[in-house]
Amino acid sequence: MSEYILNLLPLHEGEREEFESIAPGAVHVYAGRSTVTPEQLAAATIIFGWPRPEAMGAAVNLKWFQTMWAGADDYAGKLPEGVLFTSSSGSNSRSVAEHMLTCLLSLCRCLPAYRDSQRARRWKDEGPMKTILGAWVLVVGAGHIGSEFGRLCQALGAHTTGLKRRVSGPVEGFDRVGTMDELDALLPRADVVALVVPHSPETAGLIGADRIALMKDDAILLSAGRGSVLDQAALAEAMGTGKLWGAALDVTTPEPLPAGSPLWELPNLLLTPHVAGGMRLEITRRRCVEMAQENLRRYLAGEELENIIE
Amino acid sequence: MSEYILNLLPLHEGEREEFESIAPGAVHVYAGRSTVTPEQLAAATIIFGWPRPEAMGAAVNLKWFQTMWAGADDYAGKLPEGVLFTSSSGSNSRSVAEHMLTCLLSLCRCLPAYRDSQRARRWKDEGPMKTILGAWVLVVGAGHIGSEFGRLCQALGAHTTGLKRRVSGPVEGFDRVGTMDELDALLPRADVVALVVPHSPETAGLIGADRIALMKDDAILLSAGRGSVLDQAALAEAMGTGKLWGAALDVTTPEPLPAGSPLWELPNLLLTPHVAGGMRLEITRRRCVEMAQENLRRYLAGEELENIIE
Repeated sequence: MSEYILNLLPLHEGEREEFESIAPGAVHVYAGRSTVTPEQLAAATIIFGWPRPEAMGAAVNLKWFQTMWAGADDYAGKLPEGVLFTSSSGSNSRSVAEHMLTCLLSLCRCLPAYRDSQRARRWKDEGPMKTILGAWVLVVGAGHIGSEFGRLCQALGAHTTGLKRRVSGPVEGFDRVGTMDELDALLPRADVVALVVPHSPETAGLIGADRIALMKDDAILLSAGRGSVLDQAALAEAMGTGKLWGAALDVTTPEPLPAGSPLWELPNLLLTPHVAGGMRLEITRRRCVEMAQENLRRYLAGEELENIIE
Repeated sequence: MSEYILNLLPLHEGEREEFESIAPGAVHVYAGRSTVTPEQLAAATIIFGWPRPEAMGAAVNLKWFQTMWAGADDYAGKLPEGVLFTSSSGSNSRSVAEHMLTCLLSLCRCLPAYRDSQRARRWKDEGPMKTILGAWVLVVGAGHIGSEFGRLCQALGAHTTGLKRRVSGPVEGFDRVGTMDELDALLPRADVVALVVPHSPETAGLIGADRIALMKDDAILLSAGRGSVLDQAALAEAMGTGKLWGAALDVTTPEPLPAGSPLWELPNLLLTPHVAGGMRLEITRRRCVEMAQENLRRYLAGEELENIIE
């Protein structure tokens, strides 16, 4: 029996043909998240994309599902028993890394203050700036995103150290990789501290008042993993007393950030509403398509798939 | 007779000794811009730094003056006859290039809009973004700053072309270098257009309504040379109709920008008050010191100086 591939990816011209040439014997059906029918879901043996989690129960013939997102929390417990589940982990690494780099450079050059002045029609010199050249960047979380961020920082002349739970060898983008045990020893030396660890019992509250106090008075803090990693109240209190050159948060807890949070008004804090990743760049979309195609090839050849979610 | 070196550079610990070891036979006098005395100016045979232009008439024994700035307009016609005049051209290239890169990335990631939302305590997704990866960057002006900006863009994965008046070979930071004659042919293909040409009769009004119209509808325009290069009224009109993804101006005409200018309020226009260069980074200050030291060595050895202003 041939495969029924339900493809919900946002495809461009020529990309249907790419899938069809990889699996010429399969039935290829294309739909959108909101236009997909229960009949299509019921018939599908393979699904690519981002169907509504609550609709997945209808996929009674499903054997393999690859989501177009890096994370997979949404589908936890919602997939039929025995379905092979893969993600597009790594597809948005460049987007998140470039967002972090952009925020870092913006803080170095005081762009938030200059933007505020612009809106007030004020031509005002904000004085000294910082440069990434020669800066010492500590990346907490040395996975896909951390590695890509490290690589971009190196390309602009920074020194980089990555921290992860277990070290099994060099990681691209880092001059050196160490374990999380080194965190407290390294925080006082870092010009930039970048948090890209996922949420877990171990990472919740990882950076609190004590560790913020360990940082240089003029360090820059970036947070783009999960909001729970950072104690926001402790950050607001420390920055209120002049600690840190600046901070940029793309993730908060909760999200959206409540209107009453003190983070909104901290002058050197740059806040973006969890937009570092997602499907905002064409290169991210294309990477998701390529990851689906590569795994489809592997699936049909009986090889092990990439990005399997246990 | 030994040289009397009046050093007005902002020196750090150990740097006086560096100068004194290069010219052990000279008299070394250190002062600040506001603390320098007429007697010191009258005695000086060499001056490093940034004295008030109107004070220069007092320097009756002056043979050589090196300003700590890249430009030298301030001193035109104010130096005693026959004085050798050199600049610190190139000292702030990294600062200006990094500022331009920061503004470019900020526009790509919609940071001005996100900053405005933050000030309004608004958690709002601004949708699609751009990346520098694979972007085609056209740099108008392939001197020190243009070359450094090109190099940074290349390091992040962009393709770069530089334009200058006369091409005499490859220039670091550019995949290709062409002449200004190619401008109109290349503008329609550029994802990013960066203006770093100085003010001159040839560059005044270089980018007006016609050339803005030649650009891609979603191009990004950067201006960091001199404000006169760009027709601001034409830019405001074009951006008002949705032309361009965004623009970043560090220079305007006049400066400060009048409160009534429409540029202040254009949502995708990022305005900074001529702060890309100057002495805002320690690396710029240090480079000025090194340039003074290198030229001092050359001067005493009878070699030709660098950065002579005709």
